[in-house]
Parts: sequence; C-alpha cells; structure tokens
Amino acid sequence: MPHEEVLQESRRASPAPMLLNAERLKAVMKAEGIDAVVATSAENVTYTSGYWALSQWIRRGPQIYVLLPAADLAASEIIASTTLLDQIADQQDVWVQNVRRYGYFQVDRSNAPLDDLDSRQAELYALPDNGDAIRALVAAIQSAGLSRSRIAIDEMGLLPGHWEKLCGELPDARLVPGFQLLRRVRAVKTAEEIARLRRVAWITEASIDAALAVAREGATEGEMARAFHGCTVSHDAFPVIGCIGFGTRAAMPNVQPSATRLKSGEVIRLDVGGRYKHYRADIARMAVLGEADDKTATYVRALHVGVLKALEMIRPGVKASALFETAVEAVRREGIPHYNRSHVGHGIGVDGYDLPDLTPASKDVIEEGMVMCVETPYYELGWAGLQVEDMIVVRSDGIESLMTSDGGLRVMR
Amino acid sequence: MPHEEVLQESRRASPAPMLLNAERLKAVMKAEGIDAVVATSAENVTYTSGYWALSQWIRRGPQIYVLLPAADLAASEIIASTTLLDQIADQQDVWVQNVRRYGYFQVDRSNAPLDDLDSRQAELYALPDNGDAIRALVAAIQSAGLSRSRIAIDEMGLLPGHWEKLCGELPDARLVPGFQLLRRVRAVKTAEEIARLRRVAWITEASIDAALAVAREGATEGEMARAFHGCTVSHDAFPVIGCIGFGTRAAMPNVQPSATRLKSGEVIRLDVGGRYKHYRADIARMAVLGEADDKTATYVRALHVGVLKALEMIRPGVKASALFETAVEAVRREGIPHYNRSHVGHGIGVDGYDLPDLTPASKDVIEEGMVMCVETPYYELGWAGLQVEDMIVVRSDGIESLMTSDGGLRVMR
Repeated sequence: MPHEEVLQESRRASPAPMLLNAERLKAVMKAEGIDAVVATSAENVTYTSGYWALSQWIRRGPQIYVLLPAADLAASEIIASTTLLDQIADQQDVWVQNVRRYGYFQVDRSNAPLDDLDSRQAELYALPDNGDAIRALVAAIQSAGLSRSRIAIDEMGLLPGHWEKLCGELPDARLVPGFQLLRRVRAVKTAEEIARLRRVAWITEASIDAALAVAREGATEGEMARAFHGCTVSHDAFPVIGCIGFGTRAAMPNVQPSATRLKSGEVIRLDVGGRYKHYRADIARMAVLGEADDKTATYVRALHVGVLKALEMIRPGVKASALFETAVEAVRREGIPHYNRSHVGHGIGVDGYDLPDLTPASKDVIEEGMVMCVETPYYELGWAGLQVEDMIVVRSDGIESLMTSDGGLRVMR
Repeated sequence: MPHEEVLQESRRASPAPMLLNAERLKAVMKAEGIDAVVATSAENVTYTSGYWALSQWIRRGPQIYVLLPAADLAASEIIASTTLLDQIADQQDVWVQNVRRYGYFQVDRSNAPLDDLDSRQAELYALPDNGDAIRALVAAIQSAGLSRSRIAIDEMGLLPGHWEKLCGELPDARLVPGFQLLRRVRAVKTAEEIARLRRVAWITEASIDAALAVAREGATEGEMARAFHGCTVSHDAFPVIGCIGFGTRAAMPNVQPSATRLKSGEVIRLDVGGRYKHYRADIARMAVLGEADDKTATYVRALHVGVLKALEMIRPGVKASALFETAVEAVRREGIPHYNRSHVGHGIGVDGYDLPDLTPASKDVIEEGMVMCVETPYYELGWAGLQVEDMIVVRSDGIESLMTSDGGLRVMR
C-alpha cells in the first residue's frame, strides 16, 4: 500500500488532536457573555483550527479567519482564500470541517480518479466564491444566525479598515476585541500543545549542543549559529531566535551572530529557540571556554539559583508576581546585589510570549497546564551577558521540566 | 588587533549602503505633497532605516517606527523600544543616526572602559525614556516641527487603536495611509538590495541542488526539505518557503513536505526560497525521476517558454499586464491550450510580494531596477503540478537574470 494511502486512512480513522483548549474557550466565552469568537491573526487561526496557512505566516496581509460559535464549537468555520485551500485538505491536524472560500485561483483537474486528498481539495475548490475575506466572514456570521450576537473578534489580524467594515455590515451585532480573550484561553495548554513544546525544547537543546560542539578558540559566533540552525532544521523545526554572543557582545540582549572570534576565558551566551509544528522554544544557556573567573562563576550561580528558586515554588494558585520577587531576591542574595529585571519569564506556545507574564505588576495566577519560560538574564555593558532560561509545564503539584540539560555554566575545554 | 575593533573601524570609515531608494522616496513624497513618512511595519522599518529589530519580525505587536521628513532625510529618526536598542548599535547597516527610545529595560554597566560598540549602546540607553511607542512618535513628529504637516503613516504595523490615538494627539496634522506609498517606493531596488537579492537567489538555487541530490526512489519530501533548508542555513539564510511535492501532491500550490516517498517517473515540484539579510527569494524548479512522459515533457516545455517569452519582452516602459498576456498566450500556444492564471509574477524584495503585480488588470509599468519573479505555475488535481519561476532584475535594455540554472525539467537518474 503506497505511503500516502496509509496517511489518508489514518486521517479518517482518528480525530485530529486539538491545539485549542475547547473547554477553556467555552468557559471564558460563557463568563464574558460572548456568543462567538473570530480568530484572525496567524497564531490564533492555527490555534483555534489546526490550520496553518503558509502566506498568512510569512507575510502581512493574507486574511484567514476562524469563526467559533459558543453554542456549538463543532459548527466552527474556516474562512480561507482559494489559494490556500490545499493546506486544509492536506493538514491532518485541521479539526474544523466547515470551510468558506473567497477569491479566484486556477487549479485544473485531470480525468483520472482522485484519491482522498485530491477529492477533498476538489470539494473545497467547488465551494461557492464569497468574493473577499470580509464578505465571506459576514456571510459566515449571518448564516450561523449570529448577526445579532456579541462577537469577540481578534483585532490583531484584521487589515486597517476591516473593523469598521464589519461594524457597518453587521449593524445589529455587538463586536468586541477578542485578541486578549484568546490569549487568556491559550495560556493553559492541551496535551497536544505540550507534546509539541516538549519536542521543540528538545530540538533546541540538541541544537545548543551542536553549536557548543564547534566552540573552540577562534571559532566565530556565525559558525556556532550555522551549527545551531543546521541541527534545528535537521529535526524539521525552523529557526526563529538565534542570539549567540561571546564576551562583551553577550551583553547585547538580542546579540546577532557575527564574525567575532571566541577567545579563551570568554563567556558564550545562547538565547535561542526554533519553531516546530508552529510551536516555539525559548531557552538560554551559557558556556565558558576554559576557566571561568570568580565573578563569572558567582554571577552564573546566582542567576541559576534565581531560576531554581522560582521553579521550586511554582504550582497552581501561586501569583506570577511572587515568582518574580522570589527569583530576583534569590539572585541578589546569592551574589548580584544590584540585580534588577523587568520580568523573569513568560508563557510560551504558538506565540513566543503567551501568558502568564512573570512581572512585578502581573495579576496573573499560575494554573495547571501552563507552559512557561523562567529566566534570569543579566546584561553588563563592557563585561558580559549571562542568562539561564528553562521551559517547564505547570502540573498539579509543581512543575515538569521540559529541559534535559542543567542551566549552570558549561565549561568547554 | 582584535577582530571586533576592525569591525568598529570599518563601521566608522564608510557610510552604510542603503536599502532605501532615497531619490524615489523624495520624488513620491513631492508628487503627493507629503511632508513626512512614518514606517511602522517590520519590512518598512528595515527598508527605510536598515534597522532589523528581532522581536518586530517574529511577533505581532512590538512597535518600532522610522520618521522620515521630506525636507531632510538625514534628520530621520528611529523610534525603538529600549529592549531593542542593542541592535541599532551593532548593525552596521543602520544609516539613521537619530534614535528616540521608550520603555524600561535593565542593562548594567561595568567600570571597564567601553569599546565603540558598547559606548554606542551606553549612549542609546542614556537617552530619555519617552514612555510608550505612540508618545515617542508624537514627540518625534512635534520636535521635527511636523505637527501641522501632511504625514503618510504606514498603517500596517500600528496596533488597533493607534491610528485614532495619533489623530487625537496631532489634531493639526493631516495623517494619510502610507503603506501603499512605501510599497511603490520599494518597487525599484537600490544596488545594495539587488546584491542581497542576487545572493539569496544563489543560496536558493544551491539549496535546490542540495535537495535534488538526495532525490532517489523511496526518498521522502521531508528528506529533500531537510537537505534544502540545511543548505540554506549553512549560507546564513533563513528558511521561509519550502514547498516540495511529488507526483499528484505537486498539484497542491502550497505543498508542505511530508513522509510521502518518491516513485520512479514522478515529477518533483520545488517552489522555494529563504531570506538572506532580510531579502527574500522565490524560485520554482522541476525534476523528474527517470523518464518524463509525453504530457509532462510537453507541458513543462510550454510553461518554460511562457516564462522565456515574458522575459524577452521585459524592459522599462512595458506594461505588467502585457507580460501577463504574453506569458499565458505562449503557454497556451506551446501545449496547454486551457492554461489560465491569476498572475505570472510579482516584485520581490524585503517582502515576498513587492510591486509590480503581473496580473491581467495590473496598471503597473515596468521600471529599470525592479526585481521580479516571473512564473507560470500549472496545477492539475489528480495528475501533477508544474512550475517555472525565475528571479530577474530589470535593466535599461532588458533583463539581468539572477538565475544560474535553467528553468526546464531536470531528469534525475
């Protein structure tokens, strides 16, 4: 049996695992009196439907939406440009079955019998053309009987002028911004999301190892970056963040790899992470070539203890702001008395900065199923930059680390 | 002399090569009576200033602006979050010297003497904090004496509500949307842009070769994609488009590499391109494993002739719509009588779809210095997908191809 047919069979056999936390979405919609949500930004479209539409992710402008009615999530609908329908048919993880298309795109059809994948495409191309994205969305809302409803529309993916157009076309609906609502829903991950985050964390740690494997006196930041990204793509992930800096350059928070060469005794700071099946990693590790001086050793240990102390106290119900205080105080106590930070971490998922925000002013409360980066970066101009950043999942009684390596200083010989 | 110091010296010695077509921007501003332009989207910020701000490129939300006054482009100003100032100091190709910062971010400073790079950072961190992005932009406009001017603001990078805030804060200014204006400016490339586009085209062709090198019976689309992206990152470019499909799967316009295995006689369609120094490639090539059947051979030839006929007639002054007609008619005449398309190409640069649009309804006219993708894709469900796509520069008397390979069918043995 050819491979593709096997894929087809498995596609039909089991429902796609969902990225969307459907229970949480329903609860939030109920609590806020929302009758429907419309996802418009690339992250939210993928999150709510499983549909990853190439051009929406790589450009500004292409409009794809997902309409999710509170009364029946199974009646959700994807609104897609005809040019992007093939990906709905091919992607096994699209769980929204209803599709509304808009726009002209030419695809011919052979006289040969079509397999399942091609039949599904043919079916999608045969749908009526709704003209443009906003007309299609309005039609979807109307035919779902939602014209007089309270609808939360993710305002971040719309083009300028679209919001006003929607208000004009749906005069009896009450439209409210939906981006923050979806961000709150996304804060607690599903099993499928955690599996992807675990995988991308693993790929990123493997890529850190690959980068450090080429670190020797005279090696450049650029060489390490090529090794890092090469490993990432070899595992089907895509490069996103690749901050790798030596010595004083490591004090640049966003250091981009250059032709600068590594010298003995210098610190290497890596703040890195790719994207795997649309899910992000963000991990920081440090190494030193040869012996670390006392300051480096003390500071690294203090920053590492800061992360570990925060991790120790993480459990459902803890305040994000308390994690901030704990981490910062630990770093100060352990050896960097002047340590200051804007935050010590953030959620991570389909976006690199999901909730919660680990800031002093944060009102977020830790919940089971959150996936977070906990970090204590320290940047000292003229000296170096140091950073520990771990990815973890919040469990009922503490954390599950997604890390396989220790956050302490690695000594390279 | 340590390497970094050499970099510093060369940075001071010669002005950064500009991506911005300053003459064209000035001409367009003058023709439209615009006193200043504000870039807000990632592409336009990089294009107008040379400044590539990491988080603006990988997330939705981070706000970086460039204010460009018509009266004196040298007085242009970058508005940046404090978290992203390091990249202004480090990037040799930032030609805008004036910076206005906003927001808190902690960077410490050692007692050691600072080198040029660190001094520039210290200088930027020491700038006054303007609070938030919009307040910083308003302050920049006011201190440039532009509060009563006509200002074209790139509407695509602003967050929802920002436009209204700007109107409220600048009641005497006339704000008009600027995204299309900047798109028109970007259509004619500078020498530095063409150099980057030539390089990314070369990297993409090298990566196509790397992918085809692993194509054999039983190889998967995924294996070819890993080889493709691996080559791309080894040349310091980043993966963007990697559509690689076999046989009937090649008929999916956005085919994403799967575990499907290559069979003898099947077509491989690659529609691919990375990003190098922020500039995009978009190239399509085809191969067949073993012998091509008559239909494949005829169709590929027809599509290839379609591109070649369009390329032959390209010169300044030619209508984009005429190129469309020429390409489509050639394909029909040469062997696909039912051939239809929405477009046969587009400009390319810092965005994957710059002007001109090679569509039947396009009003665009070809100009010297445009860089374009010319393509004749053909998708037949149940059979295969075929595509030739070349990148070229428009010169005074015709084209300069950025391709080193021929667009015809490659036969793999």
